Amino acid sequence: MASRPDPDTPDLDPGLSRGWLASTTLHVIGLALAAVSVGMLACTLLEALTSRRDTAALAVSALLTGTAGGLLSYITRPGVIRKRHIFATVAWTWILITVVGALPFILSGTFAFGGAGFVEQVVNSVFESASGFSASGSTVLADFESPGRGLMMYRQLTHWYGGMGVVVLAVAVLPFLGVGGLELISAEAPGPSSDRLTPRVSETARRLWVVYIGFTLCAALAFFAADGFSSLYDAVAHAFTVAATGGFSVHADSIGHYDSVAVETVAVVFMILGGTSFSMHWRAVADRTLPYHRNSEFRSYLTMLGLTATVIVILLWLENGFPLGTSIRAGVFTVASLGTSTGLSNATGPGSPGDYVMWVAGAQLVLLFLMVVGGCTGSTSGGIKVMRMRVLGLMMLRTVRHTQTPHAVIPIRLGRDVIGEGVVSRVAGFFLLHFLLVISGLVAVTALEGDLVSALGAVVSALGNMGPALNESGPTSNFAVAFSQPARLVLALLMVIGRLEIFPILLAAMGLADRVRSSRRHGPPFLHQVSRRLGSIAGSRSDDV
Amino acid sequence: MASRPDPDTPDLDPGLSRGWLASTTLHVIGLALAAVSVGMLACTLLEALTSRRDTAALAVSALLTGTAGGLLSYITRPGVIRKRHIFATVAWTWILITVVGALPFILSGTFAFGGAGFVEQVVNSVFESASGFSASGSTVLADFESPGRGLMMYRQLTHWYGGMGVVVLAVAVLPFLGVGGLELISAEAPGPSSDRLTPRVSETARRLWVVYIGFTLCAALAFFAADGFSSLYDAVAHAFTVAATGGFSVHADSIGHYDSVAVETVAVVFMILGGTSFSMHWRAVADRTLPYHRNSEFRSYLTMLGLTATVIVILLWLENGFPLGTSIRAGVFTVASLGTSTGLSNATGPGSPGDYVMWVAGAQLVLLFLMVVGGCTGSTSGGIKVMRMRVLGLMMLRTVRHTQTPHAVIPIRLGRDVIGEGVVSRVAGFFLLHFLLVISGLVAVTALEGDLVSALGAVVSALGNMGPALNESGPTSNFAVAFSQPARLVLALLMVIGRLEIFPILLAAMGLADRVRSSRRHGPPFLHQVSRRLGSIAGSRSDDV
Repeated sequence: MASRPDPDTPDLDPGLSRGWLASTTLHVIGLALAAVSVGMLACTLLEALTSRRDTAALAVSALLTGTAGGLLSYITRPGVIRKRHIFATVAWTWILITVVGALPFILSGTFAFGGAGFVEQVVNSVFESASGFSASGSTVLADFESPGRGLMMYRQLTHWYGGMGVVVLAVAVLPFLGVGGLELISAEAPGPSSDRLTPRVSETARRLWVVYIGFTLCAALAFFAADGFSSLYDAVAHAFTVAATGGFSVHADSIGHYDSVAVETVAVVFMILGGTSFSMHWRAVADRTLPYHRNSEFRSYLTMLGLTATVIVILLWLENGFPLGTSIRAGVFTVASLGTSTGLSNATGPGSPGDYVMWVAGAQLVLLFLMVVGGCTGSTSGGIKVMRMRVLGLMMLRTVRHTQTPHAVIPIRLGRDVIGEGVVSRVAGFFLLHFLLVISGLVAVTALEGDLVSALGAVVSALGNMGPALNESGPTSNFAVAFSQPARLVLALLMVIGRLEIFPILLAAMGLADRVRSSRRHGPPFLHQVSRRLGSIAGSRSDDV
Repeated sequence: MASRPDPDTPDLDPGLSRGWLASTTLHVIGLALAAVSVGMLACTLLEALTSRRDTAALAVSALLTGTAGGLLSYITRPGVIRKRHIFATVAWTWILITVVGALPFILSGTFAFGGAGFVEQVVNSVFESASGFSASGSTVLADFESPGRGLMMYRQLTHWYGGMGVVVLAVAVLPFLGVGGLELISAEAPGPSSDRLTPRVSETARRLWVVYIGFTLCAALAFFAADGFSSLYDAVAHAFTVAATGGFSVHADSIGHYDSVAVETVAVVFMILGGTSFSMHWRAVADRTLPYHRNSEFRSYLTMLGLTATVIVILLWLENGFPLGTSIRAGVFTVASLGTSTGLSNATGPGSPGDYVMWVAGAQLVLLFLMVVGGCTGSTSGGIKVMRMRVLGLMMLRTVRHTQTPHAVIPIRLGRDVIGEGVVSRVAGFFLLHFLLVISGLVAVTALEGDLVSALGAVVSALGNMGPALNESGPTSNFAVAFSQPARLVLALLMVIGRLEIFPILLAAMGLADRVRSSRRHGPPFLHQVSRRLGSIAGSRSDDV
């Protein structure tokens, strides 16, 4: 089963680890919290220099998060990580940063409007934090004017941390994790497989973050130029969003605020690039070649975007009766936004051409399809991913061919590579799990609400880290209007599940259930945990958490 | 590829075949039409003895169908059937009986009410015929009083023919088809595999029909007794429906017409048995044992019905606020009806407890799930089938376990049998195809209509051969109210596709496309067809159609 730690492998990083408790899991969580606190600190400074409204809330959050993260990474030391702890590490890291990430919103009273009580404020803050880190972009914020600039930038920053991933960031500074580190990256990064850019895992993680930072800088400059060099703040905020294929904006009417073809074009280009593998971006820069056209997933991805955009433009033009130019502008932007699971909108207001809930039902179905698919493997986008969809399509074709030639062996190929049957079966299993989660989410949300279409849109959108959904939770609305508090919590959970591609949270939940069961057998849970923990501290080699 | 006919195999059945054109396909179509004409003739007699309104329409239909079928089976002679003609045979048989089966409705003007023009009457008649033969039970009939008793009984009879299958009936009278015959049965019978009750294929087909007839007689007697021996006509009509798990009734308010717990109980029992494998019924009678509890699919099926009924009863009781007794009666009946893809209703009118469109959204979602699943392999019910759902569920669990132990070989078991990976992959492919058809159907229907929930319900219902759907097309409404004529045709096509489990119609369409393409290469299509046909007649051995 799980491989036992090899006593010859160095479990200490001489540079970093002075901790007395050997636990890679806690160390990674500590590093992730520390990283988030750096972002909070930067936003505190921004807030102090500009609006000064929410300086205290941000400062206290940064202090608390930084102390917790620093302490945790100080007292622990990373070692060899066991296979069965990989997913738990990723899951708990994400659950903790989501909860801690809600602190600035709670402390500043961001959601205190409309007579919301403390519980509702906490629910909304956790929702916003989950939506932020998972790079979904669904929001419960109605008032975009009251919060300070630092706090709004912190909201954008949650996207940016979550897009490439805080665990990847932690691995980048942990040079001695080896194979376990690669598995940590795989467990957090979206897509069925993750490229190994270099033999050294921490170097791979570092390069991913370097290209991600470079990407964000380019996007910020492009936005700044397209907007006529009017606001660096806006440009950086939206650069965070497109790099992470998130969806938050500092304006209530999102990109529609500018009503500018130039800004929309920049957004479209960077959203599409954000939905592409970042390993490929690294290769493009490092090797100074363009590897994109040789990648069969990227070609399918562009084909998908092109075809759906064409269909939607035609529907908008003929069925909705928009002028052709308007149809192209609204259709292309929305396809790029929803086809990459970003969720920015170019609607200038409810009922404007970009407000896709007003589009004909056929066009909205195409958008629902895009929400399900998402972008490419290894990108920051959500959904099932283009590569998996291709495998599923080929499986389907193979089934048809098998009715004619039942005993033929028909391998499934992507480009020139044959995909192993084990991988094919796992892709099908992943799709079924995804489907089951949509159904379960639908049952939960419709049990709490009424409207089936709104619920379907919201569940698909949350699992695909899309952001806006259909009907009442469309691009010009917000989720607080459309969904009750319990439903918002369900959706927040689905976002985190979707961001981590189901398994980490599922396995963590199963592990928790196992533990409860076994502790029932072995005695009172709390005492059992404590004695186990003391035992492992005494043993000092276990990396159990 | 396709195996060539073996010259040593006798391709003539000395008893039956005097035909000069060697074509199993045309012969099977001829026999199927002849069989349908026998039913039409019986209904003509019934009509002549009772209402006398639609005698002429039925007589002319019987004459036309009988002549066409008799002639076709007389001039053709069945032989060895090539693999690639199996699915085409089944597909064309069904397309033809659906079109020909619409004749009595067209000729009698059944759908002439409400100022419907001739085209709308034809569309409605084809819809009713497709819904009848595919044992769906969706109806466009609003006026249940005007049509004569013979015509209404013919409508019920279409269910009965389609339930067990007209191709199976044709195979039953063709003793020399061999392996090809078994494949014909498999291609028509619902479920991933078909039992071979005896080594002789035609004997297997005959036994299936014998047990089906016996089943129908028992159901008729039970209905007759439960209804206080008041109407043999009603009893037989509903026996046809439950045996075929169809959905048509001779009353506008279906089983709700009786408002009788006894009748509803009989319906529930026979619907559940109708959703069970008929091979198993044969064994139960022939061996005088009860094989049901040893069948793992049957156990899952009962568990599914039990669990969903419990959930729904609780929802109706607590959320809808029905009294507990009413909740049980409405919940159990509707679960048995929709969980077996029958579609009978015990609603006594719009808004009554049995009218499930008034139930809370959660309960309706459970019904949607039942519509998707359907009954057991080898039964007359529609949907994906319990066995396939179990394989899909196990695939999903395996994917979760593989994240922990990526290299473990985990076979998928049903009961004590290990399912081959080829079959597992095909089940997944079938599910994906089904899913794609739902999406395509949704796109087509929403492009023609507006409401997404109505469209989703109708498409899922049509593909699963359910009958009633959600919203406007619920149990107390009819499809003419809810859907435009083109949408009705799309749904009729989906019913036939769903009844034949996708492949026959899909492959026939693909074959047609191939033929059009190749005829473009070889010359004008019509001349090419004629010369090919003449060539094959001259050659006299080809069974090409």
